[in-house]
Amino acid sequence: MKFGGVKMGTTCSSGNFYAYFKKIMRSQIIQFLKAAEGYLSGEEISRHVKISRAGIWKYMQELREDGYDIVAVPHLGYRLISSPDKLLPEEIQFKLGTKILGNNVRYFDTISSTMDAAFQLGVEGAPEGTVVCAESQTKGKGRLGRSWVSPKGKGIYMSILLRPELMPTDLTQLTLLSAVAVCEAVTKFWDIPARIKWPNDILVNNKKLAGILTESSAEMDRVRFVVIGIGINVSATVNQLPPRSTSLKNETGQKVSRVELLQEVLRSLEKWYMILGKDGFSPVSSRWKQLSSTLGRHVRVVDPNGDVEGEAVDLDEDGGLIIRNENGLKVKRMSGDVVQIG
Amino acid sequence: MKFGGVKMGTTCSSGNFYAYFKKIMRSQIIQFLKAAEGYLSGEEISRHVKISRAGIWKYMQELREDGYDIVAVPHLGYRLISSPDKLLPEEIQFKLGTKILGNNVRYFDTISSTMDAAFQLGVEGAPEGTVVCAESQTKGKGRLGRSWVSPKGKGIYMSILLRPELMPTDLTQLTLLSAVAVCEAVTKFWDIPARIKWPNDILVNNKKLAGILTESSAEMDRVRFVVIGIGINVSATVNQLPPRSTSLKNETGQKVSRVELLQEVLRSLEKWYMILGKDGFSPVSSRWKQLSSTLGRHVRVVDPNGDVEGEAVDLDEDGGLIIRNENGLKVKRMSGDVVQIG
Repeated sequence: MKFGGVKMGTTCSSGNFYAYFKKIMRSQIIQFLKAAEGYLSGEEISRHVKISRAGIWKYMQELREDGYDIVAVPHLGYRLISSPDKLLPEEIQFKLGTKILGNNVRYFDTISSTMDAAFQLGVEGAPEGTVVCAESQTKGKGRLGRSWVSPKGKGIYMSILLRPELMPTDLTQLTLLSAVAVCEAVTKFWDIPARIKWPNDILVNNKKLAGILTESSAEMDRVRFVVIGIGINVSATVNQLPPRSTSLKNETGQKVSRVELLQEVLRSLEKWYMILGKDGFSPVSSRWKQLSSTLGRHVRVVDPNGDVEGEAVDLDEDGGLIIRNENGLKVKRMSGDVVQIG
Repeated sequence: MKFGGVKMGTTCSSGNFYAYFKKIMRSQIIQFLKAAEGYLSGEEISRHVKISRAGIWKYMQELREDGYDIVAVPHLGYRLISSPDKLLPEEIQFKLGTKILGNNVRYFDTISSTMDAAFQLGVEGAPEGTVVCAESQTKGKGRLGRSWVSPKGKGIYMSILLRPELMPTDLTQLTLLSAVAVCEAVTKFWDIPARIKWPNDILVNNKKLAGILTESSAEMDRVRFVVIGIGINVSATVNQLPPRSTSLKNETGQKVSRVELLQEVLRSLEKWYMILGKDGFSPVSSRWKQLSSTLGRHVRVVDPNGDVEGEAVDLDEDGGLIIRNENGLKVKRMSGDVVQIG
């Protein structure tokens, strides 16, 4: 459902109607400016969004403070020269083209963890497709209680709320699916050898470019919601990141629009999510295998259930990794860290 | 850790130190009264808990309002005649004897759902063993989105927070374990034929006496926490309950102390939880099979993955129900509703 160009449900849950109204106005003004060929007079904008010209002037000031480069020329009006490379809801939703993912975006300059915020929104009943993103995290989360280093403005740090019709035992499918989606989004823009290390790290030349974390809330036989956390190192320098990590800028040498990349991740994730719902895990699994850097390699899985070393030979139908050990026996692991040796 | 007879962590999270102090005082006074052989003078109590005699008098008034029958005789002092049959933290913790379960009790007269409250406490990091209980629920939850009818003071409505070291795929074990614990607690006091219908309903003569619901929060390969919800129909009349339900009073004709039953459920649950941690699922599974009313019966499992009809022949090692259908094939179900036909 659309309301003046902003999808409903975007930010009304706070119960603060005035703040909601302001967001809609702001979004309408940005979209009107973006769509314009040249200058827009204050009067035209005023007529379009139905607030006074003085009101328009105030919004323009606020947008400039947020990094929008807007020039104002007497007798001509306003013109948008450039948008900031911030993960603002208006930027993410502009020409996004998804059906569900991103309909509802919560943006933070700094947050402790997008995972915790999205999980709380899940508990409170926020709709499927809600996205929480931030410029930086003070307690960014990684797998197994680890942290995710989140230097400000240098990466994508987001969590996506889904409400899939899956059994809790099938949740690993979503984790692997997310890795496929991120890997495809990254390689759509740049010709880099991004591959998936089981279960869900995105590596380039054996260095970590992106990580995925899934947290879920479930009953015995029903998933209530899942939060998929995606961290992508975009423009951070190597010394801003943990060892054996890399960023897109480091690999490509090019400037990267975080907004465009984030949009592509949402599109790709939605595409694969629809495929999973319609055709099941099999097509996801096939694509994961194509993009895997783990299969066919000599690996060691470090796991509380016992370490295993051998050749990673297959992905099981439930998302587990199958390793053929030195005795030729096939062993499956559903958890743990993979060290890719040979 | 103990602090004046009240285990630490009981109620300090609100940040309201005065309320916390009051709870400790209150608990100390109740325990002192309970332990006394006869009358206790105001002066003795005052010395014991280190507040003024006027302060003691105020606490006595408050306790009487909560249903404690306390007589006061000039020159003799106070004496506790009886405690209310309410699920008050002081009552639950008195001579409870557990190590973890019940160290932290949150009591509500009326709450929307103990599950939601306990889940929120789990998100906020409340300690393992936290118990949320209430005299009544306005939106009591059952399995698969159903409701749990919770007439005031007529049942046990509680949720228990656990932080087990389990893989998410093993959570069904905890659900079945809870059914064993509740079944044992109920049959400890009364000689009634309480049996478990797969996965976790407690039936007496084919009527529902108690239900169990588990909700969890997990990553792909790590459980963050589990909330086990237990609803037991204690003294409700049949017309206060849904069809095909019964209560302990209805079955036994006797008066039932909800506090004693709740304590026994916590002890039994803790015992089985320790066994699971130490010896794994096998002893739990054996006991579940002994207490099952499902195995050996002709059943129909109504399940989104496809209905199955046949003889329930076994419990799988992951907690699934194995049915031999009319073609003699063994089929496993991890979810769904069981109708016990023959």
